[in-house]
Parts: sequence; C-alpha cells; structure tokens
Amino acid sequence: MKRREFIKHGGIAGVLAAGTAPAFAQGQEFRWRMTSSFPKSLDTLYGANEQVAKRVAELTNNKFQLRTFAAGEIVPGLQVLDAVQNATVEVGQTAMYYYFGKNPTFSFATCLPFGLNNRQQNAWWHHGGGEQAYNEFLKAYNCVAIAGYNTGCQMGGWYRKEIKSVADIKNLKMRIGGPGGVILARMGATPQQIAGGDIYPALEKGTIDAAEWVGPHDDEKLGFNKIAKFYYAPGWWECNSMGHFIVNDKAWATLPKEYQHAFITACHESNVMTMAKYDHLNPIALRKLVAGGAQLRVFPRDVMQAAYKASNDQFDEWASKFPEFKKIYETWTKYRSDEALWFNVAEGSFDRFMGSLGSTGAAPAKGAPAKKA
Amino acid sequence: MKRREFIKHGGIAGVLAAGTAPAFAQGQEFRWRMTSSFPKSLDTLYGANEQVAKRVAELTNNKFQLRTFAAGEIVPGLQVLDAVQNATVEVGQTAMYYYFGKNPTFSFATCLPFGLNNRQQNAWWHHGGGEQAYNEFLKAYNCVAIAGYNTGCQMGGWYRKEIKSVADIKNLKMRIGGPGGVILARMGATPQQIAGGDIYPALEKGTIDAAEWVGPHDDEKLGFNKIAKFYYAPGWWECNSMGHFIVNDKAWATLPKEYQHAFITACHESNVMTMAKYDHLNPIALRKLVAGGAQLRVFPRDVMQAAYKASNDQFDEWASKFPEFKKIYETWTKYRSDEALWFNVAEGSFDRFMGSLGSTGAAPAKGAPAKKA
Repeated sequence: MKRREFIKHGGIAGVLAAGTAPAFAQGQEFRWRMTSSFPKSLDTLYGANEQVAKRVAELTNNKFQLRTFAAGEIVPGLQVLDAVQNATVEVGQTAMYYYFGKNPTFSFATCLPFGLNNRQQNAWWHHGGGEQAYNEFLKAYNCVAIAGYNTGCQMGGWYRKEIKSVADIKNLKMRIGGPGGVILARMGATPQQIAGGDIYPALEKGTIDAAEWVGPHDDEKLGFNKIAKFYYAPGWWECNSMGHFIVNDKAWATLPKEYQHAFITACHESNVMTMAKYDHLNPIALRKLVAGGAQLRVFPRDVMQAAYKASNDQFDEWASKFPEFKKIYETWTKYRSDEALWFNVAEGSFDRFMGSLGSTGAAPAKGAPAKKA
Repeated sequence: MKRREFIKHGGIAGVLAAGTAPAFAQGQEFRWRMTSSFPKSLDTLYGANEQVAKRVAELTNNKFQLRTFAAGEIVPGLQVLDAVQNATVEVGQTAMYYYFGKNPTFSFATCLPFGLNNRQQNAWWHHGGGEQAYNEFLKAYNCVAIAGYNTGCQMGGWYRKEIKSVADIKNLKMRIGGPGGVILARMGATPQQIAGGDIYPALEKGTIDAAEWVGPHDDEKLGFNKIAKFYYAPGWWECNSMGHFIVNDKAWATLPKEYQHAFITACHESNVMTMAKYDHLNPIALRKLVAGGAQLRVFPRDVMQAAYKASNDQFDEWASKFPEFKKIYETWTKYRSDEALWFNVAEGSFDRFMGSLGSTGAAPAKGAPAKKA
C-alpha cells in the first residue's frame, strides 16, 4: 500500500526523476517566469497564479521565485502552451482545453461537456490514473501538467430570450468557445468567439443572442444582467473546470527535488483554495445579480438530453479519429458513470434536501421545517 | 486585495508569528510525534497522517520529521486533544467534534447535522472566517487547528428494518456517536456508543437495530450488509466531515517559519487529496456492497424534516448556553443558507441531471439520451 501510494503521489516527480539534479545544491537560486492565460480582472483565476508563486517562495526561503505575468504581457493568453513547449517561459497557467483544436484529448485535463464535476475530476486526476495518462499524452508537447485550481460547475450563460425547448437552441447566436461551442453547433446554434471586453456591446446590440462567461463572481463584473436577463444553469459544457500549471520538461529536470516538491505541493494547495474562494464569492455575487434583475432559469430537460446526446456523439467521433482521445476516453467514460451513480446517493440526497428548503427554510433560527414536500 | 489575501492565508502562521523563532536556523532538525484518533484500518483517514508526514519531510530535506502513531499506540483515540493541549505530543490528527461534550463549539470544525457540505465547509473555513473564529476559540486549549482531510457526506448507516416514516425512528437502538446521536435522542431514538470492532456482533444479535460508520469504502470492511441490509442515505449528521491536524501552540512557536509553511501547505494538500481518494474508492465499494445484498434507501422526507427541525432546536439551545457557540453560529447559519441556495443552482442542476441517467444512461458509448423525463 505504501509503495503504491508513493508511486501514485510521486507521479509527476517520478516521470522525470531520472533527469533531476543529482544532489540538492544548498542555496541554489531559481528565478522562473510564469505566464498566464488569464487577465488580472479574473482575480480568482489569476489569484491562483499569485498564490502558488507566494507559497513556493515561502517554502524555499525565497530561493525559488516565480515571476507572474498576465495574459498578453509577454505571451498572448491562448499561446501559453506553445510558449512553455518552446521554453520561452518555464511555467504557464492555462486551461488545457483551449488547445482542443490541436487535439481534442487536451480537454480531459479541464473538462468535457457532461463530464466530471469538481470532486470527481479531482478523484479521476489524482487517484483514477488521469494525471499519469494525461502526462503521457503531453510528453509530445515537452511539458508536464499539475492541477492547480478550479471554477466548479459554471453557469450556462445569459440569454436575451427564454429557452423553452430544444427548438430555441436552433439558430441561436451565442458567444461560447471550446468544446461547448462544438456541441451547440451540432444542435444548430452558431457559436461565436468574442473576447471578454467585446461581449457586452455585441449582446446589447443583438449581434448575438446569448453569451457565457464563467459564474456569478466573474459574470457580475461584466453587467450582462442589464441586457440579457435570463441567467441559465447549469453550464453543462464546463461542469467543472480544472486549471493547470504546465512546466517545460527540460526546466523541470534542472530543479532540485525539494523545489519540485515545493511547486507540486503549492499547486495542490491552490487547487482546493481556489475552489473554496469561488464557492465563497459566488453566493455573494448571485445575490447581487438577482437583486439587479437577473432571472434564474434551469435548462429544460429536453435541452439537456439533446445536448447530452450530441456530446456523446461528438466524443465517439473524436475517439474514432484520435487514438490518444480513444485511449483515455474508454476508462474515463466508465469512471464518469460510476461516479455519477455514487454522487446521486449520499452527496446528492443531502444537497437536494438542503436545496429544497429555499431562502427562508434554511434559516435555522426559526427552526422551521421545509415547506415543500 | 493582496494585503488582505496575505492576512487571510497567513491566518495560522499570523496568530503565532510573534513567538516564531527569529531567524531560520539553517539545518536545524525537528522530530515531532503525531498521534491519531484513527486506527490504521481506516486506511484513508489514517493515510492523511502518513501523507502529511511524508510531504513535510520532502519539503524540508528530511529536517522536519513527524513520527506517526495510530490510536491507542501512545494516546487513546479520543484523548488526542488533551495530549496536544498538555504537550504530551506536538501534533494530533483528530475529528474536533469528538470533544463536543466539553463544549458543542468544537463541532464547527468538523460538521454539524444539516450543516455545510465538503466544498461549503472548505469555503467557510478558508474564506468565510471559519478558521480564524475557530482558532480564537481553541486558544483556551493551547493549540491551533489546520484543515487536512475530509470524508465528504457520509452514509446514514445500516438498518435491520426499513425506515418508512419518522415513527420508525422512535425507540430505534442505534450505534451512533457525537452530535448526531444527540439529535436522534431528541427524536426518540436510543443512541449507543459502541467501538468499531463490537458493532457487528451487537447488530447480528439484535442488541441494536442500526449502526452508522462512515461511507461505502470504510463500511465494506465491516460486512454490515450481511446482517442489516438496508443502507440509508444521507448521513445528515455528517454531511461533510472535515478533519484537522492540531498543533500545541508552544511547539508551533519554536518552528522556523519555513517549516510552519511546509506543515500548513502539506495539510492543505492532504485536504484535497484525501477527499479525492474517498471519491475514488467509494463508488468501487458501493458496487461491491450492492452486489453483496445491500439495499440502498434514501430517508423519507418526513424523517429529514423532523431531523432538520430537531437539529435547529438543539443549536438554539446550545447557543443560549454557550457564548462561544452563539458567536460562531450567528454567521455560520447565514453562510449555510446562502451556500445551499447557490449550490442548488449550477452544481445542483448538473448533478441532478447526471444522477437521473442511471447505470446505463450515463454510458456515452451508446449515445443514449436519458430515459427518465
């Protein structure tokens, strides 16, 4: 058991152990550059960057320093993988599914539509063989990926009109990127790639009918509730969104083991801390959004079913074209099914009860039982 | 923002910074003893202990070593707090609600019946002021608590007969400890304290009608499915169960800052890793249990409502008797309500859909849409 544990947790360090500096050079200093796919305005995502840099410095008596750069400062936000692969920078903070155009296999590290939720993704990545399988795939890109943050299940975006059935998805012009856009296109929608700052005017003018961003905390800053008041859940295309720190493999091999451990541990800490921060901030923002006119809605069941079917059809297509995708997909899909069954039992039945209490029933000062039966 | 972040994340280090060794003594060695409330047979909980010890050694080039002891090896499992308070050992791994008999305020660190789920507890502890408020309370016990693992929502236990309504709770003799037992007693049941190894014969003979332990992975080892086949969800009295590493405050103050950071970071990493391990192992064990005759059930709504009311009534009583409880409870209860509302939106609607697909619908190879509407 102990030996298996060691191998499992030493997954990343293990991959490159052979190339590691042979002895810990006392006092040796490392100054690395870490570029992000995110702007500083996405304070929680970008904050993971800063937290990791701060913690690594604390753990190494300031001898291992990471200088952080926002998207565009030295590398454009969507070219972080290339910059790390080419050793332009040593480390990148990015969402791996941004690169799904190169190969859809990239998506497994972040999320797939109707994939794993936050805790299931952590389970698959750390204990279900995900990290090893994914880093095998990444070898061709000369980097290793370490899990470091998550947004949780995102929201399904802002709509100018209500979505009453799957027919309302057809011909919908929606700002959405990544694999989610591919699925919506299969359903007859027209996905559009629009940068964060340009979404508001496009939505206001009616150039687009809908737009998705992240969740309440990040969405609230952009003010969509003023021009597209129907706010839908869930963001089934981003049912969790695990973010990674990717390190150039040659740079990694120059690090003393102790610094490798410091970096990995700081990333893992940031994974739980960033999720906790979103879970703290989202309820506060949701309250403000609803007070500001947002109308909360859940996608109708037929929309969810059609999107689920379209997603699985797309996965089958990818599996037939990309052997790397197929290899991970076969174990991942069984994992997804087993996890969904288990989460429906204890976590699900508890969360459903608490969710059914509404805004007053959950106030225990009144000692009131729930009104809904 | 950065300054606030620093204060927030430096919470524990900050509390005792004044007493910290003034300069980092290069090469100074620390060998501490860490005693656990858990036996080694609870491999996942006890594994958190071992993971933290291993990681701290890796981060400090083996200069800070924690020697781990299982429950009873040097300190009985339920006396870990006392042993740390009296400096018999430097560190303890324990569930803080074990000590709720001293003061019910202890429960907030672990869970309260119908309290926060795993992610909500992380949010409250790390970003909602929980860690600071709790460590204020702990000062009187000469120790600091650092979050380090979680079981997630536990199961509601094994029953010889089905629970069809709240009337079936009355006169039920059930093995259950902690605050959950207090609530069940309010509902007319007779809670019994029975050590892990003695539960099976008591349940087999009918000395007790029901018993709760943890969740599928830990329960499966004890074989309850053979003698009390009705396996209920959720364990509303342990809707998350955050575990802690507690450190004697004088010992903590002797640690160089770098070692304090190593210990804190290793605990935070273990928090996400242990939850991920349970989430990996529980579906596997659940499958075996169901194959072995376990009949899965969800508590009827009237049982949940009565238990929820009894819990809130109990909290009100504690708040009127214990000012320390009242102080945390007032902010905690609002936090609970806001979090439950938010989790019902994105996470809830996604998990409900995935849970509704059943054991075949979630298998995407078939591309089948869900059968249930």
